[in-house]
Amino acid sequence: MNQKPEININAGMSCPIPLTDYKNVLLAHGSGGKLTHQLIQKVFLSQFKNEALEPLHDGAMLNINGSRVAFSTDSYVVSPIFFPGGSIGELAVNGTVNDLAVCGANPMFISAGFIIEEGLPMEELWRIVVSMEVAAKKAGVILVTGDTKVVDRGKADKIFINTSGIGVVDDDIDISPKNIKPGDAIILSGTIADHGIAIMSVREGLEFETRIESDTAPLNGLVREMLSASKRIRVMRDATRGGVASVLNELAESSHVGLMIVEENIPVKEEVRGACEILGFDPLYVANEGKLLAVVPKDDAEVVLKAMRSHPLGIDAQIIGEATSEHPRIVVMKSRIGGTRVVDMLSGEQLPRIC
Amino acid sequence: MNQKPEININAGMSCPIPLTDYKNVLLAHGSGGKLTHQLIQKVFLSQFKNEALEPLHDGAMLNINGSRVAFSTDSYVVSPIFFPGGSIGELAVNGTVNDLAVCGANPMFISAGFIIEEGLPMEELWRIVVSMEVAAKKAGVILVTGDTKVVDRGKADKIFINTSGIGVVDDDIDISPKNIKPGDAIILSGTIADHGIAIMSVREGLEFETRIESDTAPLNGLVREMLSASKRIRVMRDATRGGVASVLNELAESSHVGLMIVEENIPVKEEVRGACEILGFDPLYVANEGKLLAVVPKDDAEVVLKAMRSHPLGIDAQIIGEATSEHPRIVVMKSRIGGTRVVDMLSGEQLPRIC
Repeated sequence: MNQKPEININAGMSCPIPLTDYKNVLLAHGSGGKLTHQLIQKVFLSQFKNEALEPLHDGAMLNINGSRVAFSTDSYVVSPIFFPGGSIGELAVNGTVNDLAVCGANPMFISAGFIIEEGLPMEELWRIVVSMEVAAKKAGVILVTGDTKVVDRGKADKIFINTSGIGVVDDDIDISPKNIKPGDAIILSGTIADHGIAIMSVREGLEFETRIESDTAPLNGLVREMLSASKRIRVMRDATRGGVASVLNELAESSHVGLMIVEENIPVKEEVRGACEILGFDPLYVANEGKLLAVVPKDDAEVVLKAMRSHPLGIDAQIIGEATSEHPRIVVMKSRIGGTRVVDMLSGEQLPRIC
Repeated sequence: MNQKPEININAGMSCPIPLTDYKNVLLAHGSGGKLTHQLIQKVFLSQFKNEALEPLHDGAMLNINGSRVAFSTDSYVVSPIFFPGGSIGELAVNGTVNDLAVCGANPMFISAGFIIEEGLPMEELWRIVVSMEVAAKKAGVILVTGDTKVVDRGKADKIFINTSGIGVVDDDIDISPKNIKPGDAIILSGTIADHGIAIMSVREGLEFETRIESDTAPLNGLVREMLSASKRIRVMRDATRGGVASVLNELAESSHVGLMIVEENIPVKEEVRGACEILGFDPLYVANEGKLLAVVPKDDAEVVLKAMRSHPLGIDAQIIGEATSEHPRIVVMKSRIGGTRVVDMLSGEQLPRIC
């Protein structure tokens, strides 16, 4: 019979999040903000500490027989599963494509793991699968492996999709928040908060004169143009859960450099700004699914910006600020009315199940 | 503003599963049996047809800068999340390690995507994470990237985990059901049905004299021994959802060869056999999480068997049958009482959420 060694899984360690603080997992632990950060640092990283996981980038950078390979995973639980501008299927493909792209990788292969609630109309599953294949074709990736699980009614919510992806990184590319230096320019690829507000509008039954659509899109083509313009791009990050504010805070923390942004340079569509006001959201914290932030050396900022604006997904790109030695690890914004304020990491739960 | 082309996701095609048959997804679509097969063939493969996906193996075989890389994904929705012999965490690590191993790959890196139901005790999450790290160490793989989503109470069931994995395959290994030839021996690595019965015993509140434990274990060490003994192993497959019967049927169908097995050579623990009788299950269809089937040339069968029996996870290995030209694509079993019967693919739902 099997000699299966008994393993004491507690192994003398106790849970590193004090149970008096958070005895149970809260929705906010999945928000992309402070509690997510704490959960990752204390529960996941304390166990899985290793060189590849350390940088906490959107993907891991691996060495496979001398090739630099990026590997990334994301689960999608967005509700509703169909929304203006897309579906959970496109989101799942584009999201993983984007995580690889911002690592400087050329996304090549993706996997799809489906968890389906019993009773999902077959027609809806079919539409999702078709949208994934269309998205994969647009992004130039191949879906090569998959898995399907079905759980009983009431034990999931229609469908959850995990995608993982593999891409290859050229040797001359070095993308890392550690590369950020004071004086670097911060570039945003376009208008913010479209995705989050598209979802929230449907959930809240809001109607606007113009339909607000998700910006879900594959960013690998845009990234390719950017890297053709400059190999010296310090770091890129797509601004999903937690929005632009959360990405900037993560970059500031990893780089130990301060970041200063200028509110009036941040593009927000008029109708999205209006919806944010009605719903009480700050667009800086609202999720995007087709926008990225890049930090580039000041001297390369104009050439990168020009390359971005020549691509359909970067037409509205703007330089929104710069890195500074003045307030290390802190993100500060110059507001429209002239003052400055600290842009902190999202502290509660703002938009559950936005992706 | 973004030039986002409108895409008609139906694109003139309608859902290829006739909606009069299965209007909605059923639990049985996730069973690993006939309906899973139909769903994969008609809904997923009809869209995602490509060379890497075609073989329908446990993982895809990719060429990355000249390296042969295996890539696999699986989601775990087992209930309960802690069970005799393991937890959803170990299952998630071992399952993906095994999918890579049976492709002939050396598993190297895995990802973890968590979907957590709001309210999961932090202590339980912690125990799961610890068990994953222990399992990863045992299997010699590194967890390099992850993702966490939290959904509202009642919209998931405690926790679902997706793991994806990457492994490298040596150049001299060629594992494919297409290699199976009449006369080849079929080897099973040990006793069957342990995992499924361990889970069902807990669910049904059954108590036996001996506690029945899941066989969850990483098979990459065993596979390494097998490949050292013979590079001519035709194919390997771990017998999870749908059990040994489903794997044999898939192999028969892919290879166009008949498979004949001998009931009395199939090892089943006494207490597991007893539980199967009480619960009304045929052990051939019950899930395993640490057992594999291998088809090997007749001349290499003894040397591979010897190598397996020298490994702790292959002590009970047996030659259980052979490939034959007599009944192409059909699996037949010689029963204990002397007759023969066709072993069909699982047709309904037997054990939901077994992995």
